[in-house]
Formats: sequence, C-alpha cells, structure tokens
Amino acid sequence: MNVLLVFAHPEPRSLNGALRDVAVAELTAQGHDVLISDLYAQNWKSEIDRADFPALAKDARLKPGAASSEAFAAGTLTDDVKAEQEKLLSADVLILQFPLWWYTMPAILKGWVDRVYAYGFAYGVGEHSDRHWGDRFGEGTLAGKRAMLIVTTGGWEQHYSPRGINGPIDDLLFPINHGILYYPGYDVLPPFVAYRVDQLDEKGFDLIADRLRMRMRTLATTPPIPYRQQNGGDYLIPSLQLRPELGDPGVTGFGLHVDCSANRLSTTADILPMARSRQPT
Amino acid sequence: MNVLLVFAHPEPRSLNGALRDVAVAELTAQGHDVLISDLYAQNWKSEIDRADFPALAKDARLKPGAASSEAFAAGTLTDDVKAEQEKLLSADVLILQFPLWWYTMPAILKGWVDRVYAYGFAYGVGEHSDRHWGDRFGEGTLAGKRAMLIVTTGGWEQHYSPRGINGPIDDLLFPINHGILYYPGYDVLPPFVAYRVDQLDEKGFDLIADRLRMRMRTLATTPPIPYRQQNGGDYLIPSLQLRPELGDPGVTGFGLHVDCSANRLSTTADILPMARSRQPT
Repeated sequence: MNVLLVFAHPEPRSLNGALRDVAVAELTAQGHDVLISDLYAQNWKSEIDRADFPALAKDARLKPGAASSEAFAAGTLTDDVKAEQEKLLSADVLILQFPLWWYTMPAILKGWVDRVYAYGFAYGVGEHSDRHWGDRFGEGTLAGKRAMLIVTTGGWEQHYSPRGINGPIDDLLFPINHGILYYPGYDVLPPFVAYRVDQLDEKGFDLIADRLRMRMRTLATTPPIPYRQQNGGDYLIPSLQLRPELGDPGVTGFGLHVDCSANRLSTTADILPMARSRQPT
Repeated sequence: MNVLLVFAHPEPRSLNGALRDVAVAELTAQGHDVLISDLYAQNWKSEIDRADFPALAKDARLKPGAASSEAFAAGTLTDDVKAEQEKLLSADVLILQFPLWWYTMPAILKGWVDRVYAYGFAYGVGEHSDRHWGDRFGEGTLAGKRAMLIVTTGGWEQHYSPRGINGPIDDLLFPINHGILYYPGYDVLPPFVAYRVDQLDEKGFDLIADRLRMRMRTLATTPPIPYRQQNGGDYLIPSLQLRPELGDPGVTGFGLHVDCSANRLSTTADILPMARSRQPT
C-alpha cells in the first residue's frame, strides 16, 4: 500500500522523530511505500489567508469557503496545497503524527488541515437532497482509504481515562477522528497513543515502539472505528440528529456516533487492553 | 474592566469582523477598556519552533516544554509572545473570537495558544504533592479572571445539538473551554455561538448582534461554567480521576467535569434557551 505520514514535530531528534522512524521502518519492511510530509521541514504555512487564493481580486472580500471552492474548481490553489492533495489521493493510508498540545494537534498541523482540505475536495462534495446530505461522514473524496493518528502526550494515561480530569482520550480525539478524518471519507482506525513520553527510559521506549510496530503490521486488517454513516439511514435529514430509537441509552455525546451494535472493535481500549490497563508508577 | 479580545479571522469585512465591532462597541459603551489582538493583522507566527527560543544553543535538541520553561524563567521569550502575556496579565476578561474550522479554532489561534501559553506561565505552575497537582484547572496564573468564546459556524445548530452528527457544541468546545481557558485559571463563561452564518440576512444578523450585546453587557455577572476544581477534593491524586462517588450517573465523558450540583447555570442551553430552541428553516 501507499502510506502518507504527515509529521508535525519541530525536532527530528525528538521521541516523535524516533517513533516516526520506527513506523517507517516497519511499514517498509512490510512492503509498503511510505511518503512523509514533514511539515516543519517543509516550512509549511499554517494560516489560511489571501495568499492562498492568487486568483482572488485584490479588493474582493475574502470568504474562505467560497474562495476555496473557486480556487479548487479552477485549479488555482497554491502549489504547496495541490501537492498535499495529490499525496492524499495517491495514498491508501493516511497517518497523522503529532504531540498533543493543549488537547489537540499543533498549529502547523491544523494549518495543514485548514489549507489542504479545500471546498470541493474535502467538503462541499456531493449532492444534497431529502435523503442525502452531501458526501461526507463515511463518504467523500477519500472514501475507501484508511487513516489513523499517532499521538504522544506528556500527561499520564489515567488523566485521559474515562473519568480522568482531561476528559477521555477518545473524546478529545473525536473532533479529529470523526470531524477531520471520517468527514471526507476515511475509515478511521483506533488511534495509537503513547502517554507520559517525557519520562521514558529505554525500556519504556522499547515497549512503545513494539506496540507501534504491531499497529503498523496490522494497518490493513485493524477494524476501523464503526462510526455511523451520515447517509445510511441512522440520521434524520436535514436535522442530522441521530434517530430517536438509535443509540445505547447509556451513551451520550460523541459516543452516540459509534455504532456499538457493529460486530467490530470500537475503541482504543478494545484494541489495546494491555496498554490501557498499565498504570503510571 | 480591561477586556482583551483575540480575533482570528483573515477578513476584516467578514461577519466575524462585524460581530467583533458589535462586541467592542457594546463593551466600550459599558465603560470597559477593550484591547484587540488581531492575529492576522499582527502577522502572528503560528508555529512553535527554534526561533521561539533565541537562547537555545544551536546544536541543542529542541524540547518544546523544557525550552519554554527556560525561556520564560530567563525572560528570553520572543517579544511578540511576551507582549501577549502582558496583555493577558492586564486583562480582567479574555475573549477568543474565531470561526469554527474543522470543529476547532483556526491554526493561527492555536498557534497563539501554543506559543503564548509558556511553561511557567500557563502550565507547569505551582507545587505537586499528595494533595495538590500543580496550580491548574481553576487555579493558576490567570485565576480570578474571566474568559469566553465567540464562535461562528457554517453548519446548522441542530447538527451541533446533543444528538446531532457533529457532536454537541459544548463537547466540541470542551477541549478549549476546559483545557485551554480553565486550565490556567480562568472562570469560563458559556460560549457565544452563532450558527449557519453563511446564510444570514440583515434580520438574522440583527438577532445575533442583539444576543451578543446582551452577553457583553453581562460579562461581569454571567455565572461561569461550574467546572470542578482539580485540587478541591473531587479528584483522586495522582490519578486525577473523578472520585467514584461523584458525578451524575447519567453523565459520562466531558460532562463529568461540570459540577451539576452547583447552584449555577452550566451550559449554553441554560443561558440561551431561546437561541437553542430556534430551528433552521
């Protein structure tokens, strides 16, 4: 398979850099072709602004969505954005790797999403009708491909557990997994999360590297998170609210959008029971 | 009061620009002093990188947390970051205003958080002991001040409702409200959210502007979201998990960290029942 790894850490000699090398080595050993978008090394521009739309008249009001739509349709997006879109189209699997900063991705990676995810490419795709609300959430340009996150945290795993003060890691990552990866069509694999990475000794690193290698070996076979398809009948249209009769009564919020009746693994906890049960010491 | 409004939209003539002007006019009319950090106008640099730490040796490995800690302690952070920190210290109220892009803030605002929230300033504050896990989540450098979000969305309000496909707006904003604003000490007011702003006519704008003026008039009196204090006894230390006996049994995930027993308003829905019940047409 073709794998695109988008890497968002400023220091190649970081733990993130080391884990990236572990992932690439394992993927290559498995016969995959790996391409890396190293955002810091590429001097990636993070901000959506007028420079992104060279065809926009100088005195025209910048409406980011409309400008993005026109530029994508006319082929006038900037070369850096076009190159990333081509990479996404060529890749069978997308991996986003980043340290969790303030409970989400670093700005440079958010800027990659903001700019590469053009209207007509990642959103604003497909028809709207009484039964179909655009091609998104399980459908879209990137449907049929797989995606997953590789995330590191400074904080303890328990702090990200279901009753932990930071909020559950699956909920913190939902806006990315569901809102950024599932939205344009990806099948989203459970994330790989390495906790408390500032305190790692060599043995700790080896354990994490082994877990990561396992995930890289099973990239094609790991069951994706069974998010509900928007147009599959589970949601009322146009309100896009989950039908009243659906959803485990004990589940609220983000969890509603995972189909727990699906005969598949659904959370990080299911796929990594050993990792989840390790306690900070 | 001194109010700092951090503004993150690339177009002054946007709806966001108009709403900012409405907010500033109302705040000024109420006798407040308003300062604006217009991130695009300031050419804000979004990426944490080596340039942020001029005192870091050229061949030293960049560890963002450690570098941030050393630079903050030594006073060697860059001038743009220091200026924003001074503004935060001087302001009684912080407002972050942004369009919701891919379910969170634009990259430029995330970059403001990543860079301004230095170690020793916004995190890594206070002592750790068996009963106290640093000054954070209700304590910290910015304790005693208030903060709130002004957010616009292209999507429909129902899509962000408790059973809406995007996930509940309060959950989507939790990593910002709880993880970015409450973390360094702010009392966090319920967010102001304007939905479906791409479809606004003049009457629609006037309704939103009126709602916003009301929120600006009540900035000092609106009860904050009653998040639980980390060190107030509700959490086990060091696991920082909510004590087993606490939390409404019907609430899971992010909602656990709101103290629903508090005799206060707790959600956007409570404070804006009219706004929440309006239906898209």
